[in-house]
Amino acid sequence: MADRRVGLWLIGACGGVGSTTALGLAAMAKGLTPPVGLATALPQFADLGFDAAAAFVVGGHDIRQSSFVRSVAELHSRANVFADPLLTACRETLEAWGDNIRPGVLYQANSTLAALADRPDVRIAVKPKAAIAMIRADLEAFKSANKLDQVVVVNVASTEPSFPSSPYHDSAMGFQDMLDRGDVGLVPTSTLYSLAAIEAGMPYLNGTPSLGASFPAAEALARSQKVPLAGQDFKTGETLMKAVLAPMFARRNLKVLSWVGHNILGNRDGQVLNDPANKSSKIKSKDALIAAILGYKPQTHVSIEYVESLDDWKTAWDHIHYEGFLGTKMTLQFTWQGCDSVLAAPLLLDVARILLRAQRNGETGSISDLAVFFKSPMGGVTEHQFAEQFTMLERYLLGSQSTP
Amino acid sequence: MADRRVGLWLIGACGGVGSTTALGLAAMAKGLTPPVGLATALPQFADLGFDAAAAFVVGGHDIRQSSFVRSVAELHSRANVFADPLLTACRETLEAWGDNIRPGVLYQANSTLAALADRPDVRIAVKPKAAIAMIRADLEAFKSANKLDQVVVVNVASTEPSFPSSPYHDSAMGFQDMLDRGDVGLVPTSTLYSLAAIEAGMPYLNGTPSLGASFPAAEALARSQKVPLAGQDFKTGETLMKAVLAPMFARRNLKVLSWVGHNILGNRDGQVLNDPANKSSKIKSKDALIAAILGYKPQTHVSIEYVESLDDWKTAWDHIHYEGFLGTKMTLQFTWQGCDSVLAAPLLLDVARILLRAQRNGETGSISDLAVFFKSPMGGVTEHQFAEQFTMLERYLLGSQSTP
Amino acid sequence: MADRRVGLWLIGACGGVGSTTALGLAAMAKGLTPPVGLATALPQFADLGFDAAAAFVVGGHDIRQSSFVRSVAELHSRANVFADPLLTACRETLEAWGDNIRPGVLYQANSTLAALADRPDVRIAVKPKAAIAMIRADLEAFKSANKLDQVVVVNVASTEPSFPSSPYHDSAMGFQDMLDRGDVGLVPTSTLYSLAAIEAGMPYLNGTPSLGASFPAAEALARSQKVPLAGQDFKTGETLMKAVLAPMFARRNLKVLSWVGHNILGNRDGQVLNDPANKSSKIKSKDALIAAILGYKPQTHVSIEYVESLDDWKTAWDHIHYEGFLGTKMTLQFTWQGCDSVLAAPLLLDVARILLRAQRNGETGSISDLAVFFKSPMGGVTEHQFAEQFTMLERYLLGSQSTP
Amino acid sequence: MADRRVGLWLIGACGGVGSTTALGLAAMAKGLTPPVGLATALPQFADLGFDAAAAFVVGGHDIRQSSFVRSVAELHSRANVFADPLLTACRETLEAWGDNIRPGVLYQANSTLAALADRPDVRIAVKPKAAIAMIRADLEAFKSANKLDQVVVVNVASTEPSFPSSPYHDSAMGFQDMLDRGDVGLVPTSTLYSLAAIEAGMPYLNGTPSLGASFPAAEALARSQKVPLAGQDFKTGETLMKAVLAPMFARRNLKVLSWVGHNILGNRDGQVLNDPANKSSKIKSKDALIAAILGYKPQTHVSIEYVESLDDWKTAWDHIHYEGFLGTKMTLQFTWQGCDSVLAAPLLLDVARILLRAQRNGETGSISDLAVFFKSPMGGVTEHQFAEQFTMLERYLLGSQSTP
Repeated sequence: MADRRVGLWLIGACGGVGSTTALGLAAMAKGLTPPVGLATALPQFADLGFDAAAAFVVGGHDIRQSSFVRSVAELHSRANVFADPLLTACRETLEAWGDNIRPGVLYQANSTLAALADRPDVRIAVKPKAAIAMIRADLEAFKSANKLDQVVVVNVASTEPSFPSSPYHDSAMGFQDMLDRGDVGLVPTSTLYSLAAIEAGMPYLNGTPSLGASFPAAEALARSQKVPLAGQDFKTGETLMKAVLAPMFARRNLKVLSWVGHNILGNRDGQVLNDPANKSSKIKSKDALIAAILGYKPQTHVSIEYVESLDDWKTAWDHIHYEGFLGTKMTLQFTWQGCDSVLAAPLLLDVARILLRAQRNGETGSISDLAVFFKSPMGGVTEHQFAEQFTMLERYLLGSQSTP
Repeated sequence: MADRRVGLWLIGACGGVGSTTALGLAAMAKGLTPPVGLATALPQFADLGFDAAAAFVVGGHDIRQSSFVRSVAELHSRANVFADPLLTACRETLEAWGDNIRPGVLYQANSTLAALADRPDVRIAVKPKAAIAMIRADLEAFKSANKLDQVVVVNVASTEPSFPSSPYHDSAMGFQDMLDRGDVGLVPTSTLYSLAAIEAGMPYLNGTPSLGASFPAAEALARSQKVPLAGQDFKTGETLMKAVLAPMFARRNLKVLSWVGHNILGNRDGQVLNDPANKSSKIKSKDALIAAILGYKPQTHVSIEYVESLDDWKTAWDHIHYEGFLGTKMTLQFTWQGCDSVLAAPLLLDVARILLRAQRNGETGSISDLAVFFKSPMGGVTEHQFAEQFTMLERYLLGSQSTP
Repeated sequence: MADRRVGLWLIGACGGVGSTTALGLAAMAKGLTPPVGLATALPQFADLGFDAAAAFVVGGHDIRQSSFVRSVAELHSRANVFADPLLTACRETLEAWGDNIRPGVLYQANSTLAALADRPDVRIAVKPKAAIAMIRADLEAFKSANKLDQVVVVNVASTEPSFPSSPYHDSAMGFQDMLDRGDVGLVPTSTLYSLAAIEAGMPYLNGTPSLGASFPAAEALARSQKVPLAGQDFKTGETLMKAVLAPMFARRNLKVLSWVGHNILGNRDGQVLNDPANKSSKIKSKDALIAAILGYKPQTHVSIEYVESLDDWKTAWDHIHYEGFLGTKMTLQFTWQGCDSVLAAPLLLDVARILLRAQRNGETGSISDLAVFFKSPMGGVTEHQFAEQFTMLERYLLGSQSTP
Repeated sequence: MADRRVGLWLIGACGGVGSTTALGLAAMAKGLTPPVGLATALPQFADLGFDAAAAFVVGGHDIRQSSFVRSVAELHSRANVFADPLLTACRETLEAWGDNIRPGVLYQANSTLAALADRPDVRIAVKPKAAIAMIRADLEAFKSANKLDQVVVVNVASTEPSFPSSPYHDSAMGFQDMLDRGDVGLVPTSTLYSLAAIEAGMPYLNGTPSLGASFPAAEALARSQKVPLAGQDFKTGETLMKAVLAPMFARRNLKVLSWVGHNILGNRDGQVLNDPANKSSKIKSKDALIAAILGYKPQTHVSIEYVESLDDWKTAWDHIHYEGFLGTKMTLQFTWQGCDSVLAAPLLLDVARILLRAQRNGETGSISDLAVFFKSPMGGVTEHQFAEQFTMLERYLLGSQSTP
């Protein structure tokens, strides 16, 4: 185990989450920062054989002109997020990893996403199979060039518009036929990346609400390729709070009348979500769990607005109006002020480490026990209560303690 | 079971919680209000043999000149809490129950509490044994006059000052000797009421942080008298939130740096807590659980201030400062605006119903599985996480489904 | 003056603001409530000859089936707003005034507004002149039947969609020609009511953002008819706070980076504003003043959402992000929880009393010194700072102390 | 004017406010930061002859071992306040100014303040005259060594306990006798510094609630020495909000029922205020203005708590409960999150520049027109409304436009 080297491949590498993750891995490997924020670093999960920070090599795709170093420096200068000495100490590592970044592949992107692609060598794919082949070649080159035992592929690119499912997504066979024919509008870009990872035998994690591999045909492919999957959409802020607070109302038998959530943020994620098409998939993923937990549907409202000055500091104000004993109406409000990238990066590392271990343990397909990390957990999970989801994680990890 | 009649005896009957509970029982018995706020009315606990609202007769002690009707009317006119038609429809029942209120017994009360005693027929006890005898006689007269099968006794009187424990409280035998001798300063008034209930064979519930029956000698007496006990201090607002939110930080491995809570309220509870001696026991009970849940002690601060205009509308502002990945400091704030009596009354009814059932099932002594209802759970409970406490309750209730 | 009797005619009489105003006048006339909330009752404005509450008779138009009594009773039962004894004591007066309510006139209403019109005797006008004649007849009948010295007409009907201005609105002569021809789409309903009031020689107050009399041709007509005008859109909550807080940032030379305001409310106003067409005029009126006060345009966002359970309790959360010395970014947040009708009613009474007095003093046309009461002050007012607007009011009232 | 050089002498130089002011002056002189936060940089005050940033030389006293460079670096590393390039660019200037820092003088300090004095060369004065002489010698040496035309002396040292006034403070003559005799307990340390400044003919600004020169005998001395004075206690956060919001309630005739303010902060100021003796003078100064503005006294409460993790980020939560029309109770809450030093530093520079100009204009004694900058304005000011105070400032500055 000591000599194992693993790769973390980030789709959207130079975004806030991707570059913060790279910084965090570098800093942890040097012992400069404790693993605060990582559930996999909790005492109860010690000795489970997770890969240490020092075992990781980082690479990725991006469609924008940037680098790990530039991205964290800009994030810091705009939003005052990090400690300056950390940036200096990790600069060299981030520069080395930056050499592993490959130009992204655009496939039928909408104008909001296409506008972000300022990298001159970005590749435009006309046929899906061609895109998959280009991506897969990059993944395999990264693995062999760095002599890596395993690579986990993570989608932290900007959120795509909601993608309507079709019958073709349900059957592995039919889906491959469609891919071969290259039908227009069959899949979004995120799915092409996920297919490339699966075909390359690499675990795939979807940190966004984009479609990725979350449909039956992709699931079937993952099982046949012995690849574990996880996703989707990291549960970092307001939705985390909902998963924690809604059970309180349910168990106290208090009747939620309305739950309104307003989110403001100013990073690229916020910018992309300002396009209504891209926003709708996010809002759906943030809003569904309340009714699922309560067992009835109170009035709910979720807004996400791009407020440039906030940059990565996502602020959520939630107003929960509820009825108590004897019909009395009462109120709970909360304000969540968190740095989006800093909240998401440790979840990314948690799930990446779990997927690498899962592959070594021979697990394949969606791992539904990871629901605690996601807004829209894959694998048909119906449990949305945070405490119960954490118990699922504990059972999953502690009930299978064999280290490969 | 259909013919069973049970009694609810409220110490501090005409306070906000006591009179709201009486109003709620009357309204539920008439089918005028649903059991919102009662955990014992959740679907999973149906058919466990809890006493219906219509089975209850209410009585109690008070040291102030008031009545159920007057107390709820005043609460409503000051704080606009209830629906007016409810008050009208329940007036007759509350008046009838009002006839069951007996003058309270004062025993070495401090000046803040003594100042509240404006009832001319309040009784002052010099010796503890005499006080216990007077109280017990009232309890037994209530039971026989109303032909009740069981009576549960509930302390919702104003919070007493912290009471230093002594070796005498640890041994049943030594404690009785001290009581016989009538040593000054041995016990507070709340304990005398609890002893009267236990001696009369009646389950005892302590909804306040006052000492009551929460010491070994009282526990031993309860076991020998076949009496179940529960307490103490209902977990209604800010502490409920702490029990729900602190586990989120722990499981996400986020490091809480400081947790500051400011409570403002204007009811009698607030007035009594304005006396620093009375306040200290409350603050202790509100503050301890954070370190217990997190496993380390962040800086904490709890203030409780009497703000007359708020009356029963307790408002809590909590500011939680925490460190995430890479040392980034972030903040969560919440504002809880709830009506104190309306939040506490259903918990009172929940535990009263559970204790009556427990006595029928032959249970004695502190029931530690009821921790979910209390700030400082009796029975040596070390679990402070809300979800886990609720699971304890479910196991307790659903693992013993025999209905008497 | 002692014998003077004045009329208050409310367009949208049975809405929350209209009926709360009627209740307030009745309660003040009986001495049951102090004039809290009325600027005209401030000590500095005593002895200016404002009409006493007891001098008022109330009437109005409405398109919905309701009454003053029913409207305040429903408001109270849904939102627990008033003291019950007040409702009982004022019932008879409100019933008498209710007899003065006439069915409203619909003219080219959009579907959201038309859906509200459930009164069977509501009148539908095809030609504007016919509508004006019907309305004017009602106003004059009210005045003569009640032997009133003056009548002030107030628009508190639901907000209409933004109405595009046209060259016809700029010239008194051209406008009358158009009215005579009855061109479709020339004016909204609110304008027809305002013209009827002006033609009848009655002061007109527009408490909403609807067009009403706020264009040059109506202004000219008001001057020729010796009628004073005031409006528009009462400044009750979030916008009041903006007018108070924005000057602080300006004078401290702090740079506002973004100002985001989220409003949630559940009354009919909220329901009508849920229609995007109706909402846009409201948002414009709430958003413009920040840039006007600061002298530059920070990013701003205003949302208004209909949250049924809140009813009349309008809650606004504003997040102000600003830059201080040395580039440091800081934050101010506020939460405003107010009862919309209760906040607007005293402003209505203030301006109604001022307009009645102004007419007696011979003033005509828009009174620009009343900007302190309105979100979008008429009369070309460029001063949006609250303190300065109040000084304008003081100068206006105290510099013309002659009582008629 | 171009060649004028002026000195800024900071008592408590290495505290957060002092060192942030030094950094700000250095950065402005180099053109690295705009004068955001300075009222004296507003367009209406251009061309009044204020000294430019580049004209200033900085020095001061401190009792702690620190320096400008170390203090701002520590503040930044703890609280992430500044932009890193600013610190680097200003380092040399701050180091040069650091050579002007002299060891402070302790005189009968209480234990909380004495504990801060870790500088080995701190001087302890037994007799007040001796202390004054030492301080004055430092001031005059600074002036002559740097060839300064004027020096303004500013108290930004930690808050002292409330100091009881005595008859001796009222008479210039009697006061000097007492000083000569060296009576114990006659004056606090802050007063000795202020007397040294006045005797040296240097304008004196008190940015804290400590006594300083705010008593008749000091005022008389300042007049005879031709020295202008200003103070006291910078109005930076919660009190600023009170001065802005309370007038809104007064002018809308809304009745404030209670105003509760909770302040949490973790800088040295917070630490010193944790000592109840030191805190009381601060709370008094924060609480008085509400009744002064409203004209009646609602229930008020102010708490200040030391929360270490917040460092310089002072957070205030205020809850304002008020009654509107018809007795309806409503609520406004705000949360102010500001960096204390960054808020105070520009006020310091504003008043320092105004005092230097005032001395050139021949003004002496307390300048009451500067009330807008202070919590407890000197000079018998009874106006506490922010807008009116700003108008006072405008009249003062714009009505005397002669530039020396």
